[in-house]
Amino acid sequence: MIMKSFFKQNPGDPKPLKLVIKRKVRFDEIDPLRIMWHGNYASFFEEGRISLGDKYGFGYKDFEKHGVIIPLKKFHVDYMLPLEFGKTYSVETLLYWNEAARLDFEYRIYDEEKRLATMGYSVHLMVDLQKGILVVKPAFYEKVCMRWKEGKL
Amino acid sequence: MIMKSFFKQNPGDPKPLKLVIKRKVRFDEIDPLRIMWHGNYASFFEEGRISLGDKYGFGYKDFEKHGVIIPLKKFHVDYMLPLEFGKTYSVETLLYWNEAARLDFEYRIYDEEKRLATMGYSVHLMVDLQKGILVVKPAFYEKVCMRWKEGKL
Amino acid sequence: MIMKSFFKQNPGDPKPLKLVIKRKVRFDEIDPLRIMWHGNYASFFEEGRISLGDKYGFGYKDFEKHGVIIPLKKFHVDYMLPLEFGKTYSVETLLYWNEAARLDFEYRIYDEEKRLATMGYSVHLMVDLQKGILVVKPAFYEKVCMRWKEGKL
Amino acid sequence: MIMKSFFKQNPGDPKPLKLVIKRKVRFDEIDPLRIMWHGNYASFFEEGRISLGDKYGFGYKDFEKHGVIIPLKKFHVDYMLPLEFGKTYSVETLLYWNEAARLDFEYRIYDEEKRLATMGYSVHLMVDLQKGILVVKPAFYEKVCMRWKEGKL
Repeated sequence: MIMKSFFKQNPGDPKPLKLVIKRKVRFDEIDPLRIMWHGNYASFFEEGRISLGDKYGFGYKDFEKHGVIIPLKKFHVDYMLPLEFGKTYSVETLLYWNEAARLDFEYRIYDEEKRLATMGYSVHLMVDLQKGILVVKPAFYEKVCMRWKEGKL
Repeated sequence: MIMKSFFKQNPGDPKPLKLVIKRKVRFDEIDPLRIMWHGNYASFFEEGRISLGDKYGFGYKDFEKHGVIIPLKKFHVDYMLPLEFGKTYSVETLLYWNEAARLDFEYRIYDEEKRLATMGYSVHLMVDLQKGILVVKPAFYEKVCMRWKEGKL
Repeated sequence: MIMKSFFKQNPGDPKPLKLVIKRKVRFDEIDPLRIMWHGNYASFFEEGRISLGDKYGFGYKDFEKHGVIIPLKKFHVDYMLPLEFGKTYSVETLLYWNEAARLDFEYRIYDEEKRLATMGYSVHLMVDLQKGILVVKPAFYEKVCMRWKEGKL
Repeated sequence: MIMKSFFKQNPGDPKPLKLVIKRKVRFDEIDPLRIMWHGNYASFFEEGRISLGDKYGFGYKDFEKHGVIIPLKKFHVDYMLPLEFGKTYSVETLLYWNEAARLDFEYRIYDEEKRLATMGYSVHLMVDLQKGILVVKPAFYEKVCMRWKEGKL
């Protein structure tokens, strides 16, 4: 089965960066129907995104150290299967290549039987706290991207 | 200015149902950047959606009384302007006409200067707790829809 | 009936400052038992506390303008009656007089039949972002307290 | 150093049951001061409590299977050191012996340097969904208690 992505890619683009974390659904995350409340997926995705960023050197704190924040422009979730209290899920986060000063993250949540329960994405801008919205990537992230393109990440 | 909708409409479809509520951003809803955390928009939208449903007789409790729940299939947010701590916003919720057993909600958040800060949508299925996913609307909601179509809501 | 307070008061202390706000229990605040999840009371209390502070000129933003934050030292809740989805409650917040650089807040939540559903308190220190924990009140708050003692608030 | 407990114990009472879990502070759990928002401790404590209950056979689901829920009567937190974004803490949960149909949990959060950051407690009643508040422990939990008293847990 070929998994369709939310983001279009061009020939020659390096493959997405990827990381999988595990997370258990807590009692305070479920709703009266005993499944995870739909708004809590944002926290699952964010934990995946932060873990991916930390692994490759462009986490929240890395951007911040360079005076840049990465606010969301778009956020999307497709719900396929509900997440249940006390069960542990795999959250797969992918970062797709983009030439622009923008971060395209995609998320896939799998249950313990490896069934796809959720797909989603978020698009982030880069905002320099002095200069406003960036049109080119900050230098430290450009370096990460060069190594990514060279297949060194 | 013509506001583009997320949902396609056909000629002859009745106009969307609409309700506006006010909501203030609380301290526990903001993040370290002092703007509303992106995951909390789900709560703003839900409050709008529930208020709209309660007004027209198809709220959570109405569906539930008929053994039907309305889980989300899709959820989407476009962030234009950040929401700030202590400020009050207008949350406009619209329900678009759909022949199928499905609810298409759209959301628009405006600040006090009437600038559009956020747009979003959610798509809900109807699930009968005995029979599973419904392909036709439950009778009580069908009645609401008939009055909607006749311009009586 | 005499309502017992969590805080001891001395003869001659001015009466507590008081404010009542209304708040409805939202869908995302209830748990699988369909009552408000116990951790969400912190948000109800905080909304009451901020409203009281704003009214009398010592809100979060007032303290912050003077370089002072007011972190919690203690937090306590006694649950008497559950809070139910969609119902509106009165949150009464009281600030008790204290000679020290410390804020003693008490909270009482009443249902629509005026039954006492919840009591709680929080104790806050005052921390100057330069100088650390304060042993005397900052000047702007000392002025508020003088007017409070003179019965002018 | 002798750690003081919130709960009084009698000579002959078996020692508290204890479990330690690890938990990292997430981005959505911190407030504008970049420390964990005070209301989120309820979730840390609950995760500890559920893990302890699951280990010894009296978790939420065990009680529920027997038609009993365990709502909170009291909740308390003493804040000593703030919890910081991205750091991992040890949450120690203790259940103290009680002859009555009541659960007395105590919580202690330690940072990576083993400094005590937080102490707290929660008191839970046992409520039979048919019969109301229980004055004696349900049979399944009484059995757990007998083994606890015999030092077999």
